[in-house]
Amino acid sequence: MTTLEEDLEDAARPSVTGEVHPGLRRARAWLSRAVEPGTVDFWRYVEDVDPVEAARRIRTGSAPDRIRALVGARAGQDETLADLRRAERCGARLVVPEDDEWPAFALHALTRATADQPHDPEHQAKRTKALVPPLALWVRGRARLDELTDRSVAVVGSRASTAYGEHVAGELGHQLAGRGWTVVSGGAYGIDAAAHRGALAADGPTVAVLACGVDRPYPAGNGALLHRIADAGLLVSEWPPGAAPHQHRFLVRNRLIAALTRGTVVVEAAARSGAQATAKRARDLGRPVLVVPGPVTSAMSVGCHELLRDQEGGARLVTSAAQVIEEVGGIGTDLAPPVERPTSPRDGLSDLAARVLDACPVRIGVSPERLASVAGCDVLEVLRVLPALELADLVQWTGTGWRLTPPPRPPGAAA
Amino acid sequence: MTTLEEDLEDAARPSVTGEVHPGLRRARAWLSRAVEPGTVDFWRYVEDVDPVEAARRIRTGSAPDRIRALVGARAGQDETLADLRRAERCGARLVVPEDDEWPAFALHALTRATADQPHDPEHQAKRTKALVPPLALWVRGRARLDELTDRSVAVVGSRASTAYGEHVAGELGHQLAGRGWTVVSGGAYGIDAAAHRGALAADGPTVAVLACGVDRPYPAGNGALLHRIADAGLLVSEWPPGAAPHQHRFLVRNRLIAALTRGTVVVEAAARSGAQATAKRARDLGRPVLVVPGPVTSAMSVGCHELLRDQEGGARLVTSAAQVIEEVGGIGTDLAPPVERPTSPRDGLSDLAARVLDACPVRIGVSPERLASVAGCDVLEVLRVLPALELADLVQWTGTGWRLTPPPRPPGAAA
Repeated sequence: MTTLEEDLEDAARPSVTGEVHPGLRRARAWLSRAVEPGTVDFWRYVEDVDPVEAARRIRTGSAPDRIRALVGARAGQDETLADLRRAERCGARLVVPEDDEWPAFALHALTRATADQPHDPEHQAKRTKALVPPLALWVRGRARLDELTDRSVAVVGSRASTAYGEHVAGELGHQLAGRGWTVVSGGAYGIDAAAHRGALAADGPTVAVLACGVDRPYPAGNGALLHRIADAGLLVSEWPPGAAPHQHRFLVRNRLIAALTRGTVVVEAAARSGAQATAKRARDLGRPVLVVPGPVTSAMSVGCHELLRDQEGGARLVTSAAQVIEEVGGIGTDLAPPVERPTSPRDGLSDLAARVLDACPVRIGVSPERLASVAGCDVLEVLRVLPALELADLVQWTGTGWRLTPPPRPPGAAA
Repeated sequence: MTTLEEDLEDAARPSVTGEVHPGLRRARAWLSRAVEPGTVDFWRYVEDVDPVEAARRIRTGSAPDRIRALVGARAGQDETLADLRRAERCGARLVVPEDDEWPAFALHALTRATADQPHDPEHQAKRTKALVPPLALWVRGRARLDELTDRSVAVVGSRASTAYGEHVAGELGHQLAGRGWTVVSGGAYGIDAAAHRGALAADGPTVAVLACGVDRPYPAGNGALLHRIADAGLLVSEWPPGAAPHQHRFLVRNRLIAALTRGTVVVEAAARSGAQATAKRARDLGRPVLVVPGPVTSAMSVGCHELLRDQEGGARLVTSAAQVIEEVGGIGTDLAPPVERPTSPRDGLSDLAARVLDACPVRIGVSPERLASVAGCDVLEVLRVLPALELADLVQWTGTGWRLTPPPRPPGAAA
């Protein structure tokens, strides 16, 4: 067993194979555990000095004070080999930015957002809201991470969902997956689970981005579901195997759901909810925020309606998978069909014809003169429009006058 | 009994009392029956030559051809005295623009809109969509029309409403009326009726703008309701007593609902519905269009969601009477309270404190060193935030270590 220091030294030499050096991977494994993800200052340091050198300096105490303060008591620990072995045992791997399958294009939005944030640590965004890229991602499942997230949509919402919300999330998941879109969510109870299940039911891939280790079925009640997701899609986490789902980690995790996808759909959200937080991260990254409305009497839709009422938020109301795809798909290639409207023979009528039609009695036919008087027009005008109305089967001549054509007899009614 | 011609001649002389001359009122009664309301060209002619003179010229055949063509067979008829008597019998009156109670300010938006429309009759808006002022209004009830409509909101929606929509419309009607707003609607089944009933239940005034005579209980099933509205508020119509509710009249009527109110709330609307038409008239008049969302699985909310998705329509999502009033009320005077969010003791915590809190176990207390390792920070930092967490009753010292404070025992549980 090589020590971390030996691996780091080895990785510092030029690579010969073109593959990611195991020492570099181990360095990122160690760094991703040294400081809680979402810490802008730490990510910047690793970027600036390179991960192998960053790990070495922190281990030897030669890193700047502010970086050593961030690592604290973790500087002397090293669980990387245990982490990597534990990952391997459950079919997971550590994907690093140097890997081909790193979703570089999607996550570039986080890099850009980090560049926009002030360098003064005093004024840095709260870690739970910071838009900072992950140092590495633990990934469980067979598919390539970049391929699965390329055409993907986040479907998120309340854990305490209603039957309505679960129905809608399941339908959305099913239809998005059926049209070749990967459904990304958080693996939680309620809306998340319904969206994952809908995608799985369509034999589509789905990705759960977790706030704990990818070997850890959390929440426990979703254990079987998470196993199926790992089989058919991917489980993804910034935290190493075994990591516990601490509450603040969900908020840190949300930025990844927003960043990995082309847009975020919120299905049900209470007034104060993680789904709203994910929507805000998506908006901050310039990704469409799509919101499914619900009854105004439902507490579980209050957050959705607040998102839609916030005129600066730019959230868009959606009611179907087709409308979602129209927003996140390529321009002009994924247009939703317009809502179908019932048509009626009255639709094409001129104002005059409509008035004459309205003037026609239901039973007893009347003269054109009477029609003219009721419709408020000239007899000649009545005579001009009557043939068209008769052709459209809207009026009929009784032998003594004009009346409305009776509605068709219902089938089975006595003759 | 004076003839129409005698009355017109009498009205042409200068008034001495300052009251509206009965001949002028009779002229408008006759004009409002001569051509279907909503005809831009006719309204312009009456404005240009003055109502008494317009009636005289049409009667004597000296009006321009295009005007005589509009009147057609009705030119020779005169039912004004019968109309006025029939109105009187049911407690109604004809309100004309020359009356003090004419809602001149509200209806001025229609006058302005008419001025914007092309003068070329070939290119005139379809009568059912034309924004043209009424020539006169038949009003049944004791209140003054201008006073009742001054602070008013339209609440409209589908006739084939759901229990959800009726509940929401009733609540809106009740709360708007309770806050001193007049609820205006169309007296139809479904959402209209629920909104009127809600207002009446709050002992508030409500106005039904009808597409038939104000003496005619239509729809018949709303007869008792319309009577109560006439008692407590007003029934309003452009059509004379006895006029039938022809289908096209509903569309013509819709512009009045939009014009008389400060904003229009759509509660439930199918994909193709009159409520959407009213909303469009309100938008055309520059009045706020407010829309209540519903389940995306409900056909009766499809029209609402379409209005909200139309980004050029400017419709605003609302979920409560307070939000409606915020949109239609005076600027800054009628702000809705923000949606209440539950608060938690975690809210004010620093990032560090939240991480330490998350690191605390539920049962067995652990050392500050252990907390520092789990939270990824320095022991000194842990010792710095623990007192604050203990004061907030979030963590407790067990005698051997720190743990989360157990949740309060539910009342009635065994000690």
